[in-house]
Amino acid sequence: MVRNPERRAALVDAAVEVLAAEGARGLTFRAVDTAANVPTGTSSNYFTNRDDLFHHIDTWLHQRLAPDPKAVERLLELPRNRELVTAFMHDLLRRVMNDRTGFLALMELRLEATRRPELRASLMKSLRADLDFGITFHTESGLPGGAEDVTLLYLGMLGLILEHLTMPGLLDDAIPGVNTPDDLVRRLVARIVPDA
Amino acid sequence: MVRNPERRAALVDAAVEVLAAEGARGLTFRAVDTAANVPTGTSSNYFTNRDDLFHHIDTWLHQRLAPDPKAVERLLELPRNRELVTAFMHDLLRRVMNDRTGFLALMELRLEATRRPELRASLMKSLRADLDFGITFHTESGLPGGAEDVTLLYLGMLGLILEHLTMPGLLDDAIPGVNTPDDLVRRLVARIVPDA
Repeated sequence: MVRNPERRAALVDAAVEVLAAEGARGLTFRAVDTAANVPTGTSSNYFTNRDDLFHHIDTWLHQRLAPDPKAVERLLELPRNRELVTAFMHDLLRRVMNDRTGFLALMELRLEATRRPELRASLMKSLRADLDFGITFHTESGLPGGAEDVTLLYLGMLGLILEHLTMPGLLDDAIPGVNTPDDLVRRLVARIVPDA
Repeated sequence: MVRNPERRAALVDAAVEVLAAEGARGLTFRAVDTAANVPTGTSSNYFTNRDDLFHHIDTWLHQRLAPDPKAVERLLELPRNRELVTAFMHDLLRRVMNDRTGFLALMELRLEATRRPELRASLMKSLRADLDFGITFHTESGLPGGAEDVTLLYLGMLGLILEHLTMPGLLDDAIPGVNTPDDLVRRLVARIVPDA
């Protein structure tokens, strides 16, 4: 097994591209080699099998899709009210827009997890850790609401992200005058999070 | 082009099975023939190409995943309050549980729509029609709330359905004491729909 960490990172990034573009079924070592522009056979030197590759994608996406610590720091200078919760959700939405590929790959991972028990177990762990972190962060930052508010907001944002990735524009004007995902996020937060 | 409607319906149902089990990339005419237990080459006599097959799946899922008119009728005998909205959402959740395959196939269709402009156009139309129907139904039935409530509930339910299909159990106890999707639905409705 070859151990060049930069080469491995480049291969995992290429795998994310393939996953978003082709779906899980299209994610072969050969396709990753092609996408990464390396000789055929390279990926198979870095990953023991496809389960191993999926596991590396899961781990990497967890980092790649995370908020920018600087952005979080800046936001935390603001008053800890509902408006700030909206700003955090807008930051999430901006990450989705700036990395459609990464977030689409995560949706593909979820569907592939219905077929791969190992992947499901590892994804369950990383996604639940994200949610638990979100709840702790929310509470410890003194933002309004608690576990229930964060969990319901998580569900609404998950729906909104799926909708925006796969059917952009579908919800335009479903609520009269609400035409952007940012506006929808504002309405969602206003409904779910207390104004305190 | 052969025109036996029953045979065609059986092929589309088999295609839904393949789509849920293998993903869009695995949905070949040959795989459909195998799943439907018919001679190789049959599907290609019923569908002009894969785009045509995807279009038929979209149309059929629209019917297959719809509520049972009898169930709707029975529910409409109850008082038109928030409790009834919860009951309608529980009915949706029950349909998801009873037809995981159909709802998973719809998720696969959404992701495949990012790669097929024709499929995206047809799916946009059918999904938006569902939402518009939901809003009209809600309002005309005299249920509490309007377009905004239905749209936000749609987003929350979409997130919950995706979560339940791909990561069942992930949200257990995220809200202390809330351990079933039915309970989560109750909390979601309570937060989004006015108590009137």
